[in-house]
Amino acid sequence: MRNIYLETKEIEEGLEIFWGNIERFFKEEGYETIPSKDALGRISSHAIYARYSTPSYHSSSVDGIMVKSEMTKEARENKPLFLANEDFLYTNTGDALIKPYDAVIMIEDVRNEDGGVSILKPVNPWENIRIQGEDVIEKDLIFESYHKFSSVDLSVLIAAGISEVEVLKKPSIGIIPSGNEIIDEKETLVKGKIIESNSAMLMAMAYEEGMDSKLYPIVSDDKDSILKALKKAQSECDFVCLIAGTSAGSKDFTSEIVRELGEVFVHGLSIKPGKPAILGKIEETPFVGLPGYPVSTNIVFEKVVIPTIRKKLRQAEEEKDLIRAKLTKNVISSLKNREYIRVKLGIVDDKTVVTPLDRKAGSLFSLSESDGYLIVDRNIEGYQRGDMVDVSLHRPLKKNFFENRLVSIGSHDLALDVINDIFAQKGKITRISSSHVGSIGGLKALRDGDCVLAPSHLLDRAGTYNNDAISMFFNKGEVSKIDVVGRMQGIYVPKGNPQNIKNISDLVGKTMVNRQRGAGTRLLFDYLLKKEDISEDVIKGYDNEVTTHLSAALAVKNGDCDFSIGVKSAAIKMDIDFIYLKDEEYQFIIKKQNLQLKAVKELVEILKSDQFKRRMKDLGGYNVKTSGNIIGD
Amino acid sequence: MRNIYLETKEIEEGLEIFWGNIERFFKEEGYETIPSKDALGRISSHAIYARYSTPSYHSSSVDGIMVKSEMTKEARENKPLFLANEDFLYTNTGDALIKPYDAVIMIEDVRNEDGGVSILKPVNPWENIRIQGEDVIEKDLIFESYHKFSSVDLSVLIAAGISEVEVLKKPSIGIIPSGNEIIDEKETLVKGKIIESNSAMLMAMAYEEGMDSKLYPIVSDDKDSILKALKKAQSECDFVCLIAGTSAGSKDFTSEIVRELGEVFVHGLSIKPGKPAILGKIEETPFVGLPGYPVSTNIVFEKVVIPTIRKKLRQAEEEKDLIRAKLTKNVISSLKNREYIRVKLGIVDDKTVVTPLDRKAGSLFSLSESDGYLIVDRNIEGYQRGDMVDVSLHRPLKKNFFENRLVSIGSHDLALDVINDIFAQKGKITRISSSHVGSIGGLKALRDGDCVLAPSHLLDRAGTYNNDAISMFFNKGEVSKIDVVGRMQGIYVPKGNPQNIKNISDLVGKTMVNRQRGAGTRLLFDYLLKKEDISEDVIKGYDNEVTTHLSAALAVKNGDCDFSIGVKSAAIKMDIDFIYLKDEEYQFIIKKQNLQLKAVKELVEILKSDQFKRRMKDLGGYNVKTSGNIIGD
Repeated sequence: MRNIYLETKEIEEGLEIFWGNIERFFKEEGYETIPSKDALGRISSHAIYARYSTPSYHSSSVDGIMVKSEMTKEARENKPLFLANEDFLYTNTGDALIKPYDAVIMIEDVRNEDGGVSILKPVNPWENIRIQGEDVIEKDLIFESYHKFSSVDLSVLIAAGISEVEVLKKPSIGIIPSGNEIIDEKETLVKGKIIESNSAMLMAMAYEEGMDSKLYPIVSDDKDSILKALKKAQSECDFVCLIAGTSAGSKDFTSEIVRELGEVFVHGLSIKPGKPAILGKIEETPFVGLPGYPVSTNIVFEKVVIPTIRKKLRQAEEEKDLIRAKLTKNVISSLKNREYIRVKLGIVDDKTVVTPLDRKAGSLFSLSESDGYLIVDRNIEGYQRGDMVDVSLHRPLKKNFFENRLVSIGSHDLALDVINDIFAQKGKITRISSSHVGSIGGLKALRDGDCVLAPSHLLDRAGTYNNDAISMFFNKGEVSKIDVVGRMQGIYVPKGNPQNIKNISDLVGKTMVNRQRGAGTRLLFDYLLKKEDISEDVIKGYDNEVTTHLSAALAVKNGDCDFSIGVKSAAIKMDIDFIYLKDEEYQFIIKKQNLQLKAVKELVEILKSDQFKRRMKDLGGYNVKTSGNIIGD
Repeated sequence: MRNIYLETKEIEEGLEIFWGNIERFFKEEGYETIPSKDALGRISSHAIYARYSTPSYHSSSVDGIMVKSEMTKEARENKPLFLANEDFLYTNTGDALIKPYDAVIMIEDVRNEDGGVSILKPVNPWENIRIQGEDVIEKDLIFESYHKFSSVDLSVLIAAGISEVEVLKKPSIGIIPSGNEIIDEKETLVKGKIIESNSAMLMAMAYEEGMDSKLYPIVSDDKDSILKALKKAQSECDFVCLIAGTSAGSKDFTSEIVRELGEVFVHGLSIKPGKPAILGKIEETPFVGLPGYPVSTNIVFEKVVIPTIRKKLRQAEEEKDLIRAKLTKNVISSLKNREYIRVKLGIVDDKTVVTPLDRKAGSLFSLSESDGYLIVDRNIEGYQRGDMVDVSLHRPLKKNFFENRLVSIGSHDLALDVINDIFAQKGKITRISSSHVGSIGGLKALRDGDCVLAPSHLLDRAGTYNNDAISMFFNKGEVSKIDVVGRMQGIYVPKGNPQNIKNISDLVGKTMVNRQRGAGTRLLFDYLLKKEDISEDVIKGYDNEVTTHLSAALAVKNGDCDFSIGVKSAAIKMDIDFIYLKDEEYQFIIKKQNLQLKAVKELVEILKSDQFKRRMKDLGGYNVKTSGNIIGD
């Protein structure tokens, strides 16, 4: 049996329906009394009034002597006034004021004399006194209802005599992963199984929002198991989430079960990723069915579960900051959904640019490395390259964000990872933020002002590298080249080379996985085929593309093809065999004026460092003699 | 014996000296291996490479049928292609691809037929397949060294087969409160004693920075106790802080003891608050002596301790955001120090304005309610009212920060607290942000564009309220009045009225605490004195000022004076006696165009609500019949 989606709802509409049906959840408040020192991030249940004033008594605010101010009226620089020992009292900062004294003279303004002291100027009443209640007065309202306590607030509470504070209980959220293919991370991963990894993210998100979360064991895709798990979680938690089993597939029983146990208010949100969400209740406990794909589950948790909890805790929804930036790629989106496209930001030639990342619901890594979402609303077809668009930031940008991010578009090499790791080890924020579109794509992006670095390795007719391509895209003298590494290109074959491939001509009739159009590695392969007069038609899978050396090597390792092509280091990493074809230069192409950027200077320093050179050599197949050299600066 | 400060250092210079002397602390790294699911906010000790690809096998990305794509080439809308049952396999989302199938057709595009299905269009190889390693490829560098894990990162780790991760150990920080006057919060507060409240704030700050902290018992101001406590903490922690005892007072032994146990690198920072800081080491363990005043201790912890820990954890210093705003008060600061002045922000007539708060080092509450610091650097004398200045924000402003903050300058009433508490209870972010300078000061601020609301209660010659003053400051029709409450003004006397005061004439020769110049209550008092022909000279303490009703009532309660003046509610709160003098109107004066602001509309709604009226009545001495009425809109 297949379910049919109810009409999908926009998030706002979905939340309104959901919230309108779980009013009991919002009204029922749990309180607990905790030590104030443990109240960081907790929320006051009611207005809090100071029990004591702070300070709780008049005290000296300096080290000095307590005096009656009236007695000091005559003191002058040129006519010091003598105070006998019985006319004053020595005091330290914080000591209580003793009647009838009403002022303190700083010790620096007091001269010792026989039998007393002399002073050079008068003091006013209450001078150098911390007045009782100067900071907080007893009975003052110090915190409103539903106030979230900061670190400073804890001291304010304790100083005001509030050593224990009543706070809202943390709502508890039960999280149930489901699916026959899902295994616990402790089990052995076999083909057809997927490690359950969503719950760790959701529990951390819940923690960051001040919720308690409870993880339940993975349930299989059968009605009875799901029903039991939901009932148990409902009896133990304030809110229940089930991961996966929420779409309209034949094994997706969730909506049916929730209907049995309570009610389904919304099935299907018009968002992407995240469409197959269920908003309902089990008995009177709110329930959200989260889609199984990690990005979908993240979005539905963020856009549905967290706002619901914030509403319960009377914490206003935190709207995300927007930043306007120039789009570097066309984006086409369905009119039916609001799409959340993961993006990375950067600055190129003083313009803020935004690059869309992988849009697949399964690509969690792209969420991890993204800065925010480009939101393409329903009824909007998408945006054009060059359009100015608003990016909704995951978190506020750090102050020096842009100057520390080097936008790189072009060819891929493991050197990029090594460089970033060295930046990190040096405690720098500077990072290369790279998209892998191949050398040609990178040079186009550089020309169009979409990146600062274009990593490239394109063979020239003269046997040198990148010069022909540069002269195609740029004016003479417009760009420089920075040597990154020399590397060995060759053929990837399975360990032991079972088909005994020795050179290009042995590839005829074999199946390959190729690199994407515009990749330097593919162009080199085409050049070598042509040299041997071999047509691409006799290579099976020629159109089957991957975008990095590691992907190509993995395809060979896993038997998806007989061979692939790429650099030696990836073959070493994947433990497959490598048949050497050619040495080549992998260089950053950069506009000349950008050589002056602080981050680029730091980059060149790293390329020249022993640390970089040693690490690249350790990877194998690299030549680092000229790393960091700038050609044409 | 008194210590003498070494030459004070700027923070930057102080840190440079400090850091240059604790290199062992930075170099010695502790690691520990923890479950990845617990790694939120923890920091990787080295680069992390994926163990598995995600997904770890080719799988169907939809519900449908697996087919050999070659077989589907002929399918057309007008010429459906029949596939026999043996030519395909039903599949669910996530199922592993089975050879020789190489594509999946979505179930929606499949029609059931006898003995098989028919399809209307061909599929390409790999269509609707999630390729192995689509998100992450095994051996990929997924996180760099010293990467701080986010919630999403935890799932990335687990999905990539990293169920345990090596992270930096949390540095442990030992915190020792000191001072003879300091008592634990569990002890009974008596005069001359201060509740130890700094440690809660510091431990929370340490927690937020990913440190473990250990609190030691309060030590008294004697050399031996301090020495023992420092030695113990040094042997148990990576970093030691002593609170108080760091200045140059006669009981401040700290620098001497630290010199005995290790070294003092810096004594005295040229900052205010925070000057009496000590930067040193005990044996090889970094030591910071924090000044005892709460704001000072907070600033030194934030500006010295936290950057040192961040440096150790290779986390870049987070620079605070700056926001430019118009200063509403003159600020004079010493040339000798960099001063950190707590400020509040707001928006008035479309201009961002900044108001300095209490500058005393003991006023922690003003830090709690402040938005940031106005930093007045050394060698700068201060700023003038109207100057545009940069404010260093404690934390990024929420998106709708300004439209939800109603800047109020003027007279004080408990109604302001009640209004804010009702805003909070309604889950709104809207708040009145108020400074108390008296009615006249508020009207001037309103005229000068420094506030949106000016709470005022100034008696007119005609016996009405605020009209005379308004016509002095504004053009006809420029402002409106919003009724807040009617209230009872009178004389505060101690419980039982020991001096048997019955009216104004009984006050001659008595001692008072007065309200500040420009306060409506003081003007009323002056008016009543004049009416009775009593000179202010015969009232003792006439010039002794406080700025709120509660402060005035407290001074009476504590016997600082024979009487004071103010509204009835504060007398009730403080449980003192009240001698009725006059009814008056407490109103918000507001520029007409600002009645249209969303926040003002919400405010008026609250003033008219039963909830507000009931709560004001409960406080006593209030008349709420016309609350929320707008006069002259």
